[in-house]
Amino acid sequence: MHIRFLASPINPADINQIEGVYPLRPTFTKELGVLPDGEHKELAVGGNEGVAEVIAVGDQIEDLKVGDWVVMGRSGFGTWRTHAAATPNDVTRIDKGIGSLQAATLTVNACTAFRMLKDFATLKEGDFVIQNGANSGVGQAVIQIAHAWNIKTINIVRNRPEIEDLKARLKSLGATYIVTDEELGCYKTKDLIKEWTNINDNNVGIKLGLNCVGGKISTEMAKYLCRSGYHVTYGAMSRQPITIPASLLIFKDIKFLGYWMSRWYQYHSKEERSEMMNEIIGLIRQGKLGDVAHDEVTWGSSNENDESLKIKLLDALDKSYTGFHGKKQILQFQL
Amino acid sequence: MHIRFLASPINPADINQIEGVYPLRPTFTKELGVLPDGEHKELAVGGNEGVAEVIAVGDQIEDLKVGDWVVMGRSGFGTWRTHAAATPNDVTRIDKGIGSLQAATLTVNACTAFRMLKDFATLKEGDFVIQNGANSGVGQAVIQIAHAWNIKTINIVRNRPEIEDLKARLKSLGATYIVTDEELGCYKTKDLIKEWTNINDNNVGIKLGLNCVGGKISTEMAKYLCRSGYHVTYGAMSRQPITIPASLLIFKDIKFLGYWMSRWYQYHSKEERSEMMNEIIGLIRQGKLGDVAHDEVTWGSSNENDESLKIKLLDALDKSYTGFHGKKQILQFQL
Repeated sequence: MHIRFLASPINPADINQIEGVYPLRPTFTKELGVLPDGEHKELAVGGNEGVAEVIAVGDQIEDLKVGDWVVMGRSGFGTWRTHAAATPNDVTRIDKGIGSLQAATLTVNACTAFRMLKDFATLKEGDFVIQNGANSGVGQAVIQIAHAWNIKTINIVRNRPEIEDLKARLKSLGATYIVTDEELGCYKTKDLIKEWTNINDNNVGIKLGLNCVGGKISTEMAKYLCRSGYHVTYGAMSRQPITIPASLLIFKDIKFLGYWMSRWYQYHSKEERSEMMNEIIGLIRQGKLGDVAHDEVTWGSSNENDESLKIKLLDALDKSYTGFHGKKQILQFQL
Repeated sequence: MHIRFLASPINPADINQIEGVYPLRPTFTKELGVLPDGEHKELAVGGNEGVAEVIAVGDQIEDLKVGDWVVMGRSGFGTWRTHAAATPNDVTRIDKGIGSLQAATLTVNACTAFRMLKDFATLKEGDFVIQNGANSGVGQAVIQIAHAWNIKTINIVRNRPEIEDLKARLKSLGATYIVTDEELGCYKTKDLIKEWTNINDNNVGIKLGLNCVGGKISTEMAKYLCRSGYHVTYGAMSRQPITIPASLLIFKDIKFLGYWMSRWYQYHSKEERSEMMNEIIGLIRQGKLGDVAHDEVTWGSSNENDESLKIKLLDALDKSYTGFHGKKQILQFQL
């Protein structure tokens, strides 16, 4: 089948993949065309996330038709391009009725947040989740999905000059409590968190901690988890390892686990992928899961030449790479 | 019912408990007698492990009879005493046919080894386990039980002058391979371990790592685990925390968990306890699980007075406390 991409974001992991420091390689092929020197060299297309429209299907394909929207069903497909040939297993059909930019950013951040809230602790309404890097793309999705499910969140963010604005913004997304990294270690905050979560003994309290930072803040966070709680690492923004006191493992039975969305896609069926997508799209339609902050990078309008496109792409990559630009760069293909 | 103790070891955790640095308190009671000043003060008896003989049972108790041997069914009972009143739930009946010193040391080391080999990774014959502190009581039990089940072990021990003697001794217990902490980080050892375990990709290799040391060696050990392997901490002899690179969690899906035998006893039934004991006693009877190195500390022979008993106990506690004495002190009650 053939698909044309509508929109594809640039995620930090895409850049790590190009740098060769990401454990998943993109799909290399000799079919992407001939190099200027005439050689058929192995090439790969960057990008792991995106939404595309089906523009042609073979006779054997029954569950997809021309006009359907699809997102990527696996990592490493290569989404920074206008057109591609794909197999049905490369993609997951999604319900329309959300914008293409929303659809383009479904499969990484929102799905990571969704799965981490579902697949570790058994959370019920009123339960608590604590997370660091709460302002990250995944962090914001965690806040919103948890809020939609009546799960309370304690959100750790780095202190910064405009901290009150950030707190207000996260509150508006549904964050229950927000503390800064500096506040986290204070006795006053410890008491506050105990009060919020009604920690009377080790068996109640916070069942799940989500860590995308690493280092000291991830250890501090682990200490707030209840007995047999889950500490799930899905990122390492500080580039620091996690240090665990043995007592948290032995006596408190905290489980230190990792989460990687790409692995989930590898081991789960098309049906499971669809079910997750539909649930997330439902939240978007109900207004419970909003857009990520982003810049639209339009691509392929008639007055652009190769050189201007290259500059545009490099600029978007630069903005994604520096990370603290704060907005996701999304390529929007105009055809 | 009433029981009389036959033998009770002194374990490091017993001493930590007396020091107040262990998370489980012993059972305090005012019924242990009157202090010299006439006051009924709350007292507790030390010791968490031991074997006792049933000497009297009430009418309601059906599954225990006079003459039965029992081990402790929970932590904190207090085993450093000649006699005690107990409820059936305090104890687990065991098959006789092993020595009292073997029976006295069943419930901590052998059971910890047994459960850690059963409850985390699904191990089949020929699979590999790696452990540090391989010369510890639990470590030696791991070697023997794994050997009995045809599971291969890679055993890390600290380098020492008489290392060849130690290697020979662990080999005689059934250790498959032995490496020193100093050798572990060497490229040569890395290649050797790959060769031993046939690591061709991340999906095969070593499924389970057992850690009672902590610090650098526990991180090194984690790197040898296969994808989705289990790193289980049950001790911290180095008193160092465990440092985990985020990539081991996220991309390699290594699960860092803790194990505490006391928690297992808390959440498992009498039947499950009996089943485990019988399986371990079976291994002992078949000669597959040998005695731990120990000193017998006889207690209560007719020519001893309170003062000489006190000196004897303090000496045994001292030897247990220094740890590197290497032999478990076992009180043997003579009545």
